[in-house]
Amino acid sequence: MLTNEKRTGYEAWLRYEAAQYGIVREAYASQCSAISALGSSKVLVTAVQELAEAVGAITGQQPKIAAPPERLSSGVLIGVKGMLDPELERLTADDTAQIGDEGYLLRTLPGAAGEADRIAVVGGSEAGALYGVFHLIRLMQQGEPINALRVVEQPANGLRMINQWDNMDGSIERGYAGKSIFYREGKFTEDFERVRDYARLLASVGINAIAINNVNVHRVETKLITEAFESELKKAADVFGAYGIRIFLSVNFASPIAVGGLTTADPLDSSVRSWWADRAAVLYRAIPEFGGFLVKADSEFRPGPFTYGRDHADGANMLAEALAPHGGIVIWRCFVYNCLQDWRDRRTDRAKAAYDHFTPLDGNFADNVILQIKNGPMDFQVREPVSPLFGGLSRTNQMLELQITQEYTGQQKHVCYLVPLWKEVLDFDTHAAGEGSTIAKIASGAVHNRPLGGIAAVSNIGDDDCWTGHPLAQANLYGYGRLTWNPALPAEQITKEWIRRTLGGDPSVGEVVEDILHRSWGIYESYTSPLGVGWMVNPGHHYGPNVDGYEYSKWGTYHFADCHGIGVDRTIGTGTGYAAQYHSPWRETYNSAELCPDELLLFFHHVPYTHALKSGKTVIQHIYDTHFAGAEEALELLESWQTLEGKLENGYFRLAAARLREQSEHAKEWRDVINTYFYRKSGIADAYGRLIY
Amino acid sequence: MLTNEKRTGYEAWLRYEAAQYGIVREAYASQCSAISALGSSKVLVTAVQELAEAVGAITGQQPKIAAPPERLSSGVLIGVKGMLDPELERLTADDTAQIGDEGYLLRTLPGAAGEADRIAVVGGSEAGALYGVFHLIRLMQQGEPINALRVVEQPANGLRMINQWDNMDGSIERGYAGKSIFYREGKFTEDFERVRDYARLLASVGINAIAINNVNVHRVETKLITEAFESELKKAADVFGAYGIRIFLSVNFASPIAVGGLTTADPLDSSVRSWWADRAAVLYRAIPEFGGFLVKADSEFRPGPFTYGRDHADGANMLAEALAPHGGIVIWRCFVYNCLQDWRDRRTDRAKAAYDHFTPLDGNFADNVILQIKNGPMDFQVREPVSPLFGGLSRTNQMLELQITQEYTGQQKHVCYLVPLWKEVLDFDTHAAGEGSTIAKIASGAVHNRPLGGIAAVSNIGDDDCWTGHPLAQANLYGYGRLTWNPALPAEQITKEWIRRTLGGDPSVGEVVEDILHRSWGIYESYTSPLGVGWMVNPGHHYGPNVDGYEYSKWGTYHFADCHGIGVDRTIGTGTGYAAQYHSPWRETYNSAELCPDELLLFFHHVPYTHALKSGKTVIQHIYDTHFAGAEEALELLESWQTLEGKLENGYFRLAAARLREQSEHAKEWRDVINTYFYRKSGIADAYGRLIY
Repeated sequence: MLTNEKRTGYEAWLRYEAAQYGIVREAYASQCSAISALGSSKVLVTAVQELAEAVGAITGQQPKIAAPPERLSSGVLIGVKGMLDPELERLTADDTAQIGDEGYLLRTLPGAAGEADRIAVVGGSEAGALYGVFHLIRLMQQGEPINALRVVEQPANGLRMINQWDNMDGSIERGYAGKSIFYREGKFTEDFERVRDYARLLASVGINAIAINNVNVHRVETKLITEAFESELKKAADVFGAYGIRIFLSVNFASPIAVGGLTTADPLDSSVRSWWADRAAVLYRAIPEFGGFLVKADSEFRPGPFTYGRDHADGANMLAEALAPHGGIVIWRCFVYNCLQDWRDRRTDRAKAAYDHFTPLDGNFADNVILQIKNGPMDFQVREPVSPLFGGLSRTNQMLELQITQEYTGQQKHVCYLVPLWKEVLDFDTHAAGEGSTIAKIASGAVHNRPLGGIAAVSNIGDDDCWTGHPLAQANLYGYGRLTWNPALPAEQITKEWIRRTLGGDPSVGEVVEDILHRSWGIYESYTSPLGVGWMVNPGHHYGPNVDGYEYSKWGTYHFADCHGIGVDRTIGTGTGYAAQYHSPWRETYNSAELCPDELLLFFHHVPYTHALKSGKTVIQHIYDTHFAGAEEALELLESWQTLEGKLENGYFRLAAARLREQSEHAKEWRDVINTYFYRKSGIADAYGRLIY
Repeated sequence: MLTNEKRTGYEAWLRYEAAQYGIVREAYASQCSAISALGSSKVLVTAVQELAEAVGAITGQQPKIAAPPERLSSGVLIGVKGMLDPELERLTADDTAQIGDEGYLLRTLPGAAGEADRIAVVGGSEAGALYGVFHLIRLMQQGEPINALRVVEQPANGLRMINQWDNMDGSIERGYAGKSIFYREGKFTEDFERVRDYARLLASVGINAIAINNVNVHRVETKLITEAFESELKKAADVFGAYGIRIFLSVNFASPIAVGGLTTADPLDSSVRSWWADRAAVLYRAIPEFGGFLVKADSEFRPGPFTYGRDHADGANMLAEALAPHGGIVIWRCFVYNCLQDWRDRRTDRAKAAYDHFTPLDGNFADNVILQIKNGPMDFQVREPVSPLFGGLSRTNQMLELQITQEYTGQQKHVCYLVPLWKEVLDFDTHAAGEGSTIAKIASGAVHNRPLGGIAAVSNIGDDDCWTGHPLAQANLYGYGRLTWNPALPAEQITKEWIRRTLGGDPSVGEVVEDILHRSWGIYESYTSPLGVGWMVNPGHHYGPNVDGYEYSKWGTYHFADCHGIGVDRTIGTGTGYAAQYHSPWRETYNSAELCPDELLLFFHHVPYTHALKSGKTVIQHIYDTHFAGAEEALELLESWQTLEGKLENGYFRLAAARLREQSEHAKEWRDVINTYFYRKSGIADAYGRLIY
């Protein structure tokens, strides 16, 4: 609910302005003059409330809310397929036959003689009905007609998930928008109002699952699966449950030792297995709709099955066995690599690690286990190839992991609209099962006909007024949700929707903001690390340029720049062999310095600074040109935003302006550090004689 | 007191072994068969106790302690000049005429017929008498004869000070030996026993002042000057006072605002002046022997007079005025520079900052103000030129600041014996007032005949059993104290003393340890940053190699390496002009790449990698050679130490062995990172084809 309308950007895309034209306002008011739900469950109650609030704000007239059994002769009927009255079932049967559990039908049903039309919102489930309602609201926010609706929608992905990296001390790992809205000082928040406001934002874009604690599970958080936090967990589950969202917990693989008093966490040990089974039973007794566990194991110093000589499948299946009786699932992260690598050793390649760890286990995982795979083989860089692990598994449930929080993409101080990046990932054709084996279809389970699949992403929200630090970063959360529902949505459509719903209908605003968002990723890429080589950030916090930041470290993230050239040789012949993890034609494309796309050249090849790109430029001149241009373009973003003064709520305008100003200053720092580094190292002057230090 | 003799290294150099030879033991026992103090003040009581404990342990016979007025016919008489009995005054008058306040006389007085000789320990003050006792103990620990003593000692420096960088949360800024022995969780420790044990270690080497909190004064510590901590402060002052040591507090210049409720801290504001005067009065009422204030102002984000458009003299003199009525002094740090520098700007030079800030104020500081000046112009690097500020002030009290804690010299994981470095600093002839104007003589006040002066250093101790993390790092604390007393002491003498007192008299042990200590600084320098350029450490914590760590930062610490050469041009003609801050002949020496000593070449000059050093090597080959050799020598230190197995207490042996092992591994990391960095950058191969990555 809009608890404080004065908070800048708090409403996000559920900001309800009165419809612009009187005729539209009147039409909506009349078409939604009454609302009735065929059922009284909590999600349907939510659906009615949400619609009523939206209609009231958009039309200026509060709709009549009819108590359930009452038969509406006009207005909006909300119900669940199979639980409607016989007449409605009959009228909608041909459409609802197409929808599954979480889909919905929005349909205008003509009234009998003398009676007005009715709008039926029929979900395949309660949650489906709620999604239908949010669809209807979206149409009204955009001033679209709702007088002849016949919309059948079905989500592409079973799991549409958010991962909170929130710690119970109130901090958020990689959070750039304030403190946690869930926790403070080792406890759950006492006021769940903000959590509920978050739940409705998520549900409005189709999110149906959330892991509410950091995958790095620390001491206190390890106890989340114990009775210690049961009542608060129940409360959280209820708040999310009212919006059709199931909660998951990130768990510590060593929990049997850390909180169970056992001496081992060996997944094949029977006392460990029964300990987890008991935990699951207790959790499900309290929260029947509990989703399951998210696990980061044997990764970056987190405990895991390797300690006991077991593999990931042993570990995941043990937890899956505990959850299976209750319908729960295990989401097992594939972000596994050697983070104690020796930088002197050029044979070990972090990019190869996930594939090497998990493909030998394909087919060994239980049916209620999903492997959660980051989009790239490294770690959410501004540019990476798609992880080859997606093409390497066919008998295993898979899930794509994205990062909404801008860890490596400007930390919500820089604007970096990620929907175009995600679209490239989703549309990438792995050729795993012939042409058309896109990441979108592998993640959903369609390519290999897997029972489970979906997309998860690390949240970018905190307790900042506008949720996301940078108000324009809300577009990433919005776009993420929309893409989980339908990865085929064009980026432009998502952008336009978000702008219209968040900032209103002024086309002169829309054009400017759309331009800023769509240029932003490319601009950020241009002034940061070049040509796919990645990193070059300060270690630890990952903000700001540091070309050698990870060059001599244990983290396996190198560029190997010397006075002659730069890049990582990941070819099959002379390099680490990473390119072989791809199917043809990618294998050949990436393996060849001539065929490899420019933007990934340095990820796959070590080349001289004088190497000519497809663009015709040398590598070194490309570095100089993109960095000079990128910093200029960052300034253009600010200048462009400044034309909006007076057209937006002033606090919102100023907040974004301040961030864009910081970005344009920081882009100059990036430009100068990167250019200076490579000028000093290569000794090759800029062809245009621009200032390099 | 030796509260727990089993704690490895806890006794440090006050470890009392029974004298090796029976004849010596008997002689000591007889010569010290009784002890009497002519006076009953607490410091004299301490002196008697210390001597009795030492004699008991070294001789195996407990001396008789005679109550004060009792006249001893033999044994040790301890007293203060001017307060002896007439006969003693007469007998010692020609010697005691040479000693001032803190000096002492140790003299064997022949007994009358039939009576044994007596030993008189006569101090210029009670503290002087205590120092005399510790001298006597030192002689006995080393097995020296004490039968014909005539020693007159006078400290070279008025202030011989330790700066604790301890915070009240128990942490120690730049501490590498555990937690604070003073504080825990925002409070003083409840058990002052360890503090007392520290006081006796300090007094035993002549320390007479200690600032007990970090110069970066945080929130809680700001309250140390208020009544809130009065009783604990009094307790600390008593503990140190019993060993002749005065306590100082580091103060927050913004205290009038932070704890005084004023709206300004302007040093010329009368309410501010009277607030500080009141504070001083309250402090001195509680602690009449209170030393004064240590101040870090307008430095690294600490508040200071600049906020109010005032200068350092305004700030310091205001505090000095508050302390003067009580005999207190203000120690004002000169570590002032622009820490928000733009790395692109090559005209600004951090090395010049202290000189530029303070020389224009020469003569403006009150007589009870001392400027505390770091030994080098940067920040305690393994190699720096001596700060030219020492040569730039003649009408201002000055004090040398050294760093015992090994922030940039291996953090007490590496052995780095700093006495030779300090000796170079102390012996450096500034030529400020003609030849012989050494740092030692400027700091003591001798060159310019200043009323106050001395040496301060940042402590290297914490609550580790052995005090200093690395047991060999105790030698730095010991050596520091000895040099404050007498900067002319040869390093070799200090080393031998420390070894003999700490590790006993086995010459095969002594040789090995002396060799390790004396090689250690050179070895550490050889595998870290080359030729005086400094830094190349990880930012923040300052441990481990990171060549570009500060290269693009705001801290003003650069090397400007490119593919052609390296170094900072600080010459007068083409560089920052820093060399002009020195008197002749240093100005000309440093200004010339030909005359400049190799070890400081890159501090003063930017040269090509192919530049030939005085050694005949090129710069790049020097880098390779020293780094390969340094890592090998670090391993030799370990191997050398390992020959001591069985000759030392086992825990002590193993502790140092573990550190030396870590050092030798880490030296390889330094070698490889530095060599790889410069090989990649210069493209010049090692003349000997050794492995560079």
